[in-house]
Amino acid sequence: MTERATPAAITRVNGGGRAQDDDVVVIEEPLEIRVGDRPVSVTMRTPGDDFDLAAGFLFTESITSEVESIRHWGSPNVVRVDVRNPVDLQRLQRHFYSTSSCGVCGKASIDALRVNASPVARVEVSPDVIHAIPQRLVDAQKTFAETGAIHAAGLFDLSGNLLRMREDVGRHNAVDKLIGSYVREGRTRLENTIMLLSGRAGFEVVQKSIVAGIPIIASVGAPSSLAVDLAREFGATLLGFVRDGRFNIYVGDMHVE
Amino acid sequence: MTERATPAAITRVNGGGRAQDDDVVVIEEPLEIRVGDRPVSVTMRTPGDDFDLAAGFLFTESITSEVESIRHWGSPNVVRVDVRNPVDLQRLQRHFYSTSSCGVCGKASIDALRVNASPVARVEVSPDVIHAIPQRLVDAQKTFAETGAIHAAGLFDLSGNLLRMREDVGRHNAVDKLIGSYVREGRTRLENTIMLLSGRAGFEVVQKSIVAGIPIIASVGAPSSLAVDLAREFGATLLGFVRDGRFNIYVGDMHVE
Repeated sequence: MTERATPAAITRVNGGGRAQDDDVVVIEEPLEIRVGDRPVSVTMRTPGDDFDLAAGFLFTESITSEVESIRHWGSPNVVRVDVRNPVDLQRLQRHFYSTSSCGVCGKASIDALRVNASPVARVEVSPDVIHAIPQRLVDAQKTFAETGAIHAAGLFDLSGNLLRMREDVGRHNAVDKLIGSYVREGRTRLENTIMLLSGRAGFEVVQKSIVAGIPIIASVGAPSSLAVDLAREFGATLLGFVRDGRFNIYVGDMHVE
Repeated sequence: MTERATPAAITRVNGGGRAQDDDVVVIEEPLEIRVGDRPVSVTMRTPGDDFDLAAGFLFTESITSEVESIRHWGSPNVVRVDVRNPVDLQRLQRHFYSTSSCGVCGKASIDALRVNASPVARVEVSPDVIHAIPQRLVDAQKTFAETGAIHAAGLFDLSGNLLRMREDVGRHNAVDKLIGSYVREGRTRLENTIMLLSGRAGFEVVQKSIVAGIPIIASVGAPSSLAVDLAREFGATLLGFVRDGRFNIYVGDMHVE
């Protein structure tokens, strides 16, 4: 195992069967990039090559390529870049990005979210429902069939009926569109539902689902370490690699007949 | 075709053969979300369900769910949300996100980039090289084999030799790490190279590649409309669905024997 992945005890579900297994998930942690004393970006990244990431971000976002020194700054998740020539602070202002849930470590990110979200309500669902929902999302996803390029987020009831679906080139946008459609109807607590994501499950999309109180989060791809930690902290069930009659339970003790 | 996709004239390359074809690509355009008069976010999204996206973003980022009204504001790519109770402006400050290249339309995004990037230098490469590189990236990608969850960006020379590779849970971070590793060596113009992306090619990763002067951008997945426009504007060759001995040319008149 490389330093970029961490062990995870999972339950593999295959049709009606289940088995405990040891798996690994990719590590996701926030990185704060500073120019001198000033934070300019917080990005969720896989640790490693952090100095490359900082230098590359500043260059490709057209801030500066005049790097004098790069070092960690008080934390493995903070990188300080000192530059040869002063950079335009006004432009930097427009580069600053941090979500309310981003601290400078995964723990801080989860702690910050705790202020704004409460644990989700546990629900039971049959594995047969989970096996059934990916095809229903694909069937509903017209744009994907055309372009092969768009993410979908679908909300299902506990019987596996598709309630609503939204698509976007950005995975987080598809989730925001889906949840936002309910917010506009005054519904901010989506209990007894399953969120199915067409791609991977990182911190951002799991955070959004938890804020909306969604108890089961399922993705066609893999979850990140921080997504696993977050689901565990808030009592959500987290399922990954949901496809072809199989899935992995990363968090939750979902009953399987 | 839905309103979320737009036609694209492409060249399909299959082994040594090629054929003109009509394809569609998913539309990607920036959306600025305002709370009252204040811009709080610019996100690259697929147009449609913009009010849902704005309401969902404000709610899931724990800004507010107290939406009074939502409307377009002077542009189809700007949404103004008025809220019932004032939101904490200090927190909003930390939510603001815009890259230097984000205007409020795709055209403005490209125009903004023009200030900071110059056209890339055209190069010729054999299709056999393109056919060969995906497997070389996979072979080099140890973390992916373990977790199935991580993006890779690989830089190749025009003979298809892998020069350097970086991985990350975020596609844009993998590109920043790769380009940043050269920036730290004082190299900011990566001529005569091919960038291969393990996922899709959206505006952000194509922008980063162009800033670094990379002439050929290839992705295992699909490109977005804005990625196509951007590649065309700067003279880069853009290849998509590069896998299994096939690929599509979205931009560029790559010579095929």
